[in-house]
This record gives sequence, structure tokens and C-alpha cells, in this order.
Amino acid sequence: MTPRGFPVEEFRTRTARAQDAMAKAGLDALLLTTEPELRYFTGFLTRFWESPTRPWFLILPRTGDPVAVIPAIGAALMRTTWIADIRTWRSPDYEDDGVSLLAGALCDLVAERGAIGVPSGAETHLRMPLADWEVLKRRTGGRVFRDDAGVMRRLRMVKSGAEIEKIRESCAIANRAFARVPEIARQGVSLAQVFRDFQRLCLEEGADWVPYVAGGAAPGGYPDVISPATERPLAPGDVLMLDTGLVRDGYFCDFDRNYSVGPAAPELIRAHDRLIAATLAGFDRARPGATAAEVFAAMDHVLTGGSGGSDAGRFGHGLGMQLTEPPSLIPADPTVLEPGMVLTLEPGVELGPDRWLVNEEDIVIGEGGAEWLSDPVRRLAELPL
Amino acid sequence: MTPRGFPVEEFRTRTARAQDAMAKAGLDALLLTTEPELRYFTGFLTRFWESPTRPWFLILPRTGDPVAVIPAIGAALMRTTWIADIRTWRSPDYEDDGVSLLAGALCDLVAERGAIGVPSGAETHLRMPLADWEVLKRRTGGRVFRDDAGVMRRLRMVKSGAEIEKIRESCAIANRAFARVPEIARQGVSLAQVFRDFQRLCLEEGADWVPYVAGGAAPGGYPDVISPATERPLAPGDVLMLDTGLVRDGYFCDFDRNYSVGPAAPELIRAHDRLIAATLAGFDRARPGATAAEVFAAMDHVLTGGSGGSDAGRFGHGLGMQLTEPPSLIPADPTVLEPGMVLTLEPGVELGPDRWLVNEEDIVIGEGGAEWLSDPVRRLAELPL
Repeated sequence: MTPRGFPVEEFRTRTARAQDAMAKAGLDALLLTTEPELRYFTGFLTRFWESPTRPWFLILPRTGDPVAVIPAIGAALMRTTWIADIRTWRSPDYEDDGVSLLAGALCDLVAERGAIGVPSGAETHLRMPLADWEVLKRRTGGRVFRDDAGVMRRLRMVKSGAEIEKIRESCAIANRAFARVPEIARQGVSLAQVFRDFQRLCLEEGADWVPYVAGGAAPGGYPDVISPATERPLAPGDVLMLDTGLVRDGYFCDFDRNYSVGPAAPELIRAHDRLIAATLAGFDRARPGATAAEVFAAMDHVLTGGSGGSDAGRFGHGLGMQLTEPPSLIPADPTVLEPGMVLTLEPGVELGPDRWLVNEEDIVIGEGGAEWLSDPVRRLAELPL
Repeated sequence: MTPRGFPVEEFRTRTARAQDAMAKAGLDALLLTTEPELRYFTGFLTRFWESPTRPWFLILPRTGDPVAVIPAIGAALMRTTWIADIRTWRSPDYEDDGVSLLAGALCDLVAERGAIGVPSGAETHLRMPLADWEVLKRRTGGRVFRDDAGVMRRLRMVKSGAEIEKIRESCAIANRAFARVPEIARQGVSLAQVFRDFQRLCLEEGADWVPYVAGGAAPGGYPDVISPATERPLAPGDVLMLDTGLVRDGYFCDFDRNYSVGPAAPELIRAHDRLIAATLAGFDRARPGATAAEVFAAMDHVLTGGSGGSDAGRFGHGLGMQLTEPPSLIPADPTVLEPGMVLTLEPGVELGPDRWLVNEEDIVIGEGGAEWLSDPVRRLAELPL
């Protein structure tokens, strides 16, 4: 197991890179409010974000170290990070839940007429009450809030070596858990029980926690890939799919496996083989200089001859501190792949009405091409009856 | 086990209650964007919200049924709910990620000059990109967005009988898991291993998933209650605390347990006894007509004689579809308790610098007073050496 956390140098490098990008974008500070954004610069790792009650803020000025403006309940943990300037208030405070403290900090750190970047584009949100946001804008007189110009998106898309090792480890844990699925899944066991047992396997193999498990089981394909488990027992002819985003030390894996309950029908084997071929085509195309759209097209060519995919999903996405991150493997994504990007390849086919089959693997882009992080599947697994 | 989901009547009642409150508040629709808000009216339950990529919307008009405006990937699951009007788009769409579809639906459902409520106060956020929010406001010409006037907060604070049964079941699962902690926690086992094993126990006892585990272990008290586990092995004299928010069928429990590793020092036993006395005082005060502030004061009186608590936390909070919900047991919360409210009682004391002790139980308010949902602790547990 790799050691937990990162050396301080990692955070200093991230900060310096962000500040370079901010200078180019004409931003005097970034205001960040979400879990991965705060953790990216501080190393502040806690499951306490599960509670929606309190807002948390980080200010990254154009020069100097980040400043944390957080509820007092987080002070002890934040003091264990490299962050020195930690400003706290007693939250929840119904009159002023950190807004004055935050406005004051922004006025300290950003000159009048300065520009404060807030991630505002695709896949972002502002994690604070909308009413407080309006007050904050009024209370920072003269300073301007605007989009972060994609600074955070571009920065986080390319992972450091240390980040890649953490994702590799999460993938290795899931590889081992998937290898043990025959221990828990057989005819007659409910899908809900399989989900519970699969999470147990993930924990036994070293996951810190299991934020995401999805899947399905139905004859010859599943209706979708996001539904919760039902109490229906597995039956011969079912395709069971399990998809996990487990976490170790704050980094996700995200890949799935399909299992035929008993011998698979030839039609199903052929469809699965086509998915594997599509995955391999995506893998081959996923090299530095290729675009996300081209990786999509390589997979889509195998599956449909190039029809452009379906409405239901995409053929993969970024992966790291979150289960899904930019870019998206869709026709409209022009992101140019670079070494250090971590992606999922996730082609799917609809074999009939409400009969989906989806294969997913995780890869990292290297100088010479892609490398597998998950152990790639080559043929459809069968669970003995 | 109670059956999964709710009868349609439950959602119709919630909708009618919301519409009554909207009429009183002068709102012509609600626009909702977060997981619990969508699920509250639809029953749409999925772990897919772990992916931050796609926005999801629900419109609750002043009359008529809710309208879902969601990514196509969610259509199959949404069709299994009672919602009939489901409008989808192919997401992610970098040009227009549902904004035009949503604006059109709002213009269909709300007359010009109509008022659209968006939850904007404490403990809320808007789960969509800020840039899209600005576009939406421009594209719904003449309609006004404003705070929901607390409609959602008041509605969700009082649970139905069916909701209470689900929370009761989650609590029962956690009760059983906590009873098995001596199987997994002993001198020499790392806290990280205890966390993993405890999650396994929660799953074995019937949790669907375990969104939240926190805790600590240190001599005579822990530094805080939100830090992740370390690899440090448990040692004699440690106090181990485990706090879980596990979920069954979409509803949380949230309570903790303390364990002395080996015989507890008399000072620690006295402190724990005081926490239990505070919890019982809170339980006795938690009756219909009392305020959240009064329940806080009853506990604080036992612990400090009435000093008003610490900066670090509160003495409890609401509980339900989320780990923490309104109200807060703090001096400033005037919420009047009503039958059907589910609360945690969570008094804490700081025994010295970075030495905390926190006890937490779950209760439901009934006509005649509070009822325990967790099996209340009466004395500090000791793990044999």
C-alpha cells in the first residue's frame, strides 16, 4: 500500500500551477466551495461532507498560500494539513454562516476591482446557500466574481504521479473484489444481497469506503446502469453487472464487470465480444494528442459503424478524486489527451428494449499511449449454476 | 424488513402539502435540483448522484403533478416512479445541458410574472452550474425566482409514519452492528481496520450502503469527530468512538458509540456518565411544543450549567433522507418540535485540549414525548484487553 496523503510539495506544485493559470486568465483569486476543490489544494480529507449543513470555503490568492475559511468543527483536522491561515466561525449560524468572515478574507486578499474566479461551467456547482451568495457579492464591494475560465478543470484533468498511484491502488482493490464475485453471486441470491456482499468484498480487499455501487441483473441485459438493487433473485440466463467506485485515500476507481448466470447465449457472447473490441479500439486511440471525441469515435465505429452513440450515456470520462470528472468521451468533447490523464472507457450497447450491456475499464494516458489500471476483461464471465 | 419504497399516496400527500404551503407563500412553482429534494416527491432513488457531471431538475407546479426534467440516462428509472411527465435530454451537452428544456418547462407551467421558489436558505445549495443558472434566469422572461420561503425545510422536517419506519429500521441495523464491535476492535488493531470492519458489520446486518463512518481513538478522548481513520493501532487507555450514518432504502440513522480499550479511568467514566445524563435531559425536554433551543439548553445545563456550548458542534440535529437535516439543537434555533420530527441528541464535552467525548442517539417526537430509535447507551462500554 502506498503511504496515505501527499508530501507538502505536491500541494505547493498544485498551488503554483493554479496561480500560473490564474495569472493568464486575469484572476486575482479563486473561491472554492466543494469537497474535491478544497481537498485538491489542502489535503483536507473527511467524510463529513456527507452533512449538507455547513458551507466550507477556500480562497486561493494570486500569490501566497491558500486561506481556509471553515466551520470551527473542521479546525483540528485542517490544522493537520499544510494550511497555515485558517479562519473559523461557529457554524451553523443562522444570522451569518461564515459570509462576513469570507467577505472579509476576500477583501483582505483581493484588491478593489480585482477578479475572483468561481468554477461555474459544466460539472460544477456552488456549494453554499444561494441567498448567502447574493449577500457575499454585495459585501465584497468593487470586486468582481466571474467564471474561473476552466482553470480548475484543466488543472485537475492531468493527474500527478502520486495521484495516479492512488488511483492504481483503488483499481487493484476492485480487481481483487471482482475476482471474488463467484463467492457471492449465484442463482437464487437476490441482487440486493449481491450488492451488500460485493461492498463487503471491496472493504475486505482494502477499500476505505465504497461510495458507489450500481448494476443490474436481468435476462439477456439490464434496463439501465443506475438503478438500486431489487430483492429479485438471480436466475439462469440473467446478465449480472456490477459497477463500483470504491475509494482508498480519497481516490476512486470506476469500472464494471458482467457475469452470465449459467451458460451465456451465443447472442450475448457476441455482443460482449463487440464491447471488448470497442474497448480495445478506445484504448489504442487514447494516446497523447488524440481528442476525447476521437476516442469516442474509435469505440463507436466498432459498435455501430459510427452512428454517434445513444442518448443514455457516454463512452467514458475522467476519474480521480471524484467518480466522474472531465473530460467526457462524447462527440462534442474536443479535449486533447495528455500524459497523466486518467479515463474510463465505457462503451455500451442496447441489445433490445431495456436490455443494456456495458463494459468499463480504467486507463491512464502515458507518453507512449494508454496503460490499463483495471485488469482488462477479455471474455464474458460465467457463474456456474 | 419493511417493504421498499412508498405507496403512491405518500407522494401525492407530500405534493399536496407542498402545494398548500406554496399557495400561502405566493409561489407558483418550486424548482428543485438536489438528490433529496427530487427523491422526496418522486421516489427516484439511485446512487448515481455520486457523479457530479449531470444536472437534474424537478418542477413542482402550484397545481398538478411534479414534472421531471432529467438526463436521458435516468429515464428508465424515473419511469418506474409515479411521475408521468418526464422530459429528457442527452447529457452531458456542452452547449445546452438541459437549460433550454428546463426554461421551456418552466414557461409551460408558470405564467409570466409568476414566482418560482428555489430553496436558498441555510443548509441548501443549487446543484447546477452557476453559468447555467444565469442563463436560466434570462431565458424564463418575466418569471421571478426567489427563495422557497422555507417550504421545503418545514415540509421535510416532519416525517410521515412510513418515513419513521424506515429510519427506525436503519437504526435497528446500526444497533446490531454496534453490538458486534467487540468482534472487530481490540488492542493492536488499527483504527483504519476497525472502520473497514465496522462498515462490513453494517452491511451484514442489512445496510444497503454506508455513506458515513467517522470516529477516533486516542488516550482519554479524541481530537475531533470528523477525521478519517489512521493506521495507528488501538492501545490500552484509548477511547474508541464510532459514528455511523448507514442507509436502508434511502433513509439514514446517525448515532455513535464509545468504547474504552481496557478498563476506563474513573475520570472518563464520570465524563461519560455526564454525557448520558445530558442525553436523557435532552430526551425528556424533546416534546411537542418545546423548541430546538430548549432541548439544547436542557443538555447544556447538565454539561456546563448553561454556558452555551462550544464552537465545534451542536448538540444534535434533524435526520432522515440526509445524514443531517434541520433543525439544529443550538441556542439560536427557535424551531418548535412537532410529532413526526426525527432528531439526534449529540452532546459533547472537551475533557482537555484535543480530548473530546461525544454521545449520540436518535429519537422521534411523538404526541406524548420522545421515543428512542437507537438503543440508548447507559454506561461506557469496555473492550477486554
